[in-house]
Amino acid sequence: MIYLDNAASTRPAPEVVEAVAQASRDHFANPSSAHALGAAAARAIEDARERVARLLGAAAAGEVIFTSGGTEADALGLIGAATRARGRHLVVSAIEHPAVLRTAEMLVGQGYELTVVSADRAGVVRAADVVAAVRPDTAVVSVMLVNNELGTLQPVAEIAQGLARATSEHPHRPHLHVDAVQGVGLVPLRVAALGADSVAISGHKLHGPKGTGALWLRAGARLAPLWDGGRQERGLRSGTENLPGWIGLGVAADLAVRFRDGQGGEAIRAERDRLEREVLASLADLASITESQPTVSGSPRAPHISSLSFPGLPAEPVLHALETRGVYASAGSACASRTRSPNHVLEAIGVEASTAVLRFSLSRETTASDVDGAVAALREAIVEISSMVKTRPQR
Amino acid sequence: MIYLDNAASTRPAPEVVEAVAQASRDHFANPSSAHALGAAAARAIEDARERVARLLGAAAAGEVIFTSGGTEADALGLIGAATRARGRHLVVSAIEHPAVLRTAEMLVGQGYELTVVSADRAGVVRAADVVAAVRPDTAVVSVMLVNNELGTLQPVAEIAQGLARATSEHPHRPHLHVDAVQGVGLVPLRVAALGADSVAISGHKLHGPKGTGALWLRAGARLAPLWDGGRQERGLRSGTENLPGWIGLGVAADLAVRFRDGQGGEAIRAERDRLEREVLASLADLASITESQPTVSGSPRAPHISSLSFPGLPAEPVLHALETRGVYASAGSACASRTRSPNHVLEAIGVEASTAVLRFSLSRETTASDVDGAVAALREAIVEISSMVKTRPQR
Repeated sequence: MIYLDNAASTRPAPEVVEAVAQASRDHFANPSSAHALGAAAARAIEDARERVARLLGAAAAGEVIFTSGGTEADALGLIGAATRARGRHLVVSAIEHPAVLRTAEMLVGQGYELTVVSADRAGVVRAADVVAAVRPDTAVVSVMLVNNELGTLQPVAEIAQGLARATSEHPHRPHLHVDAVQGVGLVPLRVAALGADSVAISGHKLHGPKGTGALWLRAGARLAPLWDGGRQERGLRSGTENLPGWIGLGVAADLAVRFRDGQGGEAIRAERDRLEREVLASLADLASITESQPTVSGSPRAPHISSLSFPGLPAEPVLHALETRGVYASAGSACASRTRSPNHVLEAIGVEASTAVLRFSLSRETTASDVDGAVAALREAIVEISSMVKTRPQR
Repeated sequence: MIYLDNAASTRPAPEVVEAVAQASRDHFANPSSAHALGAAAARAIEDARERVARLLGAAAAGEVIFTSGGTEADALGLIGAATRARGRHLVVSAIEHPAVLRTAEMLVGQGYELTVVSADRAGVVRAADVVAAVRPDTAVVSVMLVNNELGTLQPVAEIAQGLARATSEHPHRPHLHVDAVQGVGLVPLRVAALGADSVAISGHKLHGPKGTGALWLRAGARLAPLWDGGRQERGLRSGTENLPGWIGLGVAADLAVRFRDGQGGEAIRAERDRLEREVLASLADLASITESQPTVSGSPRAPHISSLSFPGLPAEPVLHALETRGVYASAGSACASRTRSPNHVLEAIGVEASTAVLRFSLSRETTASDVDGAVAALREAIVEISSMVKTRPQR
């Protein structure tokens, strides 16, 4: 098996699986309970919080609010800030994850106005365009750190600086939310210096447990909770804490810090770049079938994602042919796959619907032989599928 | 250690911990991914859904929506139904868990009107009072299955019948939500025949994983999601599925069904009743210190919760004295313990603030010797604390 769908989900590290099981056995009391078992459970969560704060480069552990995942963290950042704000205008990029884009659209149904800022053909949202979209009544601006389908880095720090300048005269500064679910642990990120108000991450994208995530919230930034109850997580996220999951997320954060500090991201980048070079080289003589190319070029990218375009070929049969060869990749993001509607990210950057766009996403577990195997399998798959496609690609 | 705080949280069953770890290793792909690994993950979730549906007595597995816990399930039932309804009036009981009560109060801040129906001194909400509170514009009615502090069974089926009769002429039937977090697996529950529209449960209250829960939703009942995104869980709960957690919840559901079908609840009830008899007997000669008594009497109760009252004694020192003897119990619910505000349930049923109310909550792991040890420790604790309390109790 060659698993190159790490942008959809990563394999939890063995240390994470073990930590979750151990915490389930050791700390089964309710962390809100007044007795010593509850207090020990609460301390274990605070330890995990410090680990996540270190991964994010937060100024204080208390800025980290644990959630059930990246999507809930995005919802808390967006809806939470929009609910507390006076203005009723939202700005998001056109290439946001559905967790942000559709939640913003949901808020439109509740009386908010939404401006969607387009991306360029290189898959990047321009900071100036985001800043230009902001109005005095803008409540929330949301731009992702790394696009999940293309791997492109978005200029969030530049957007934060531009927003600060542009809104210095406004009665209320908009809340800047950053969906960092894709890329955390693999691209430089220090929230204390980013200039954002909230940052969402997900456990299962970084070899942590599914069902875990966190929202970093700048000290002083204010959110309304999505619901109320026992007022855990500073009152922003009621519900008995997912102690084992959050401890697992803390362990995953530690492992990610160690990998990042060991320049692991560069090793992934080298393999990803080699994958792209070798795929294009191996398909060069098949130009009559498809003129394969990177989906975007010229833009800074996270190290783990490769998006390749194959004009005139259908994505799903190619993926299936890859799968019969033991190679798992994806067309677009997993979250959009159930709808089969046109991919909003590819549409936004002007990719033709007749072009197969495949995403190969690596992780720290990806080996050189995985890359070799994927390159060989992809050539076979394209030859196989092209023989079944009747017409030549139209360029 | 004698753990009698199972209403706050239960120890996850070893089978549950193992199933979570195994699922983390076996099914790390994203269940939304189009490839075979994703499909296998999705099937594993459907298997868990069927197990939970069996525990609840649902007509179909598709009626079960997995969540991150009981509090989120309550929020989805309440806010989700209120958002879709035309009316802007809510009815909840005064003894609901904060997940329901405070979320309803949150909705008041968003323009809803709230009627809080009181409970009687036996800790039971009368069905007629709930029905009488309903108006033509009532959007949601929420009453819990078992009160988490007193263990009292609430007449939810009777409320459902009364509502159906009373609102047959109304333009819109109100949505009846039932918080069944406390008591599921221990009291009779068959949602298909209950007459409610949604029922919330939590994994960690039934020896399942923390961070898991579910909302049963009657076929045809409509909810708005709390946020949007990848549209998992029938579009009602976006976010990559907590596959290992939900599989663990499925295993916990199976174990609970087996325990229930084996009349395990009656065994717990027998030990709980013995605990109460022996505590009262062992303290009978200490009437000059405190006239101990059950907090409520005469009302039907779930088998696992005992609430005992000790007039004139402070709860926290008694609990601490119990804890030094290895006995873990609670005063009020864990979720309220961090606030130290007056307990809303005890206030609602008219218990004096000068009365210590201790909750002993059993589980299928509680042994006869646990009960014996708790009875002995409680006598010692009360003698110890009463010697430090200066004034005699005022009756």
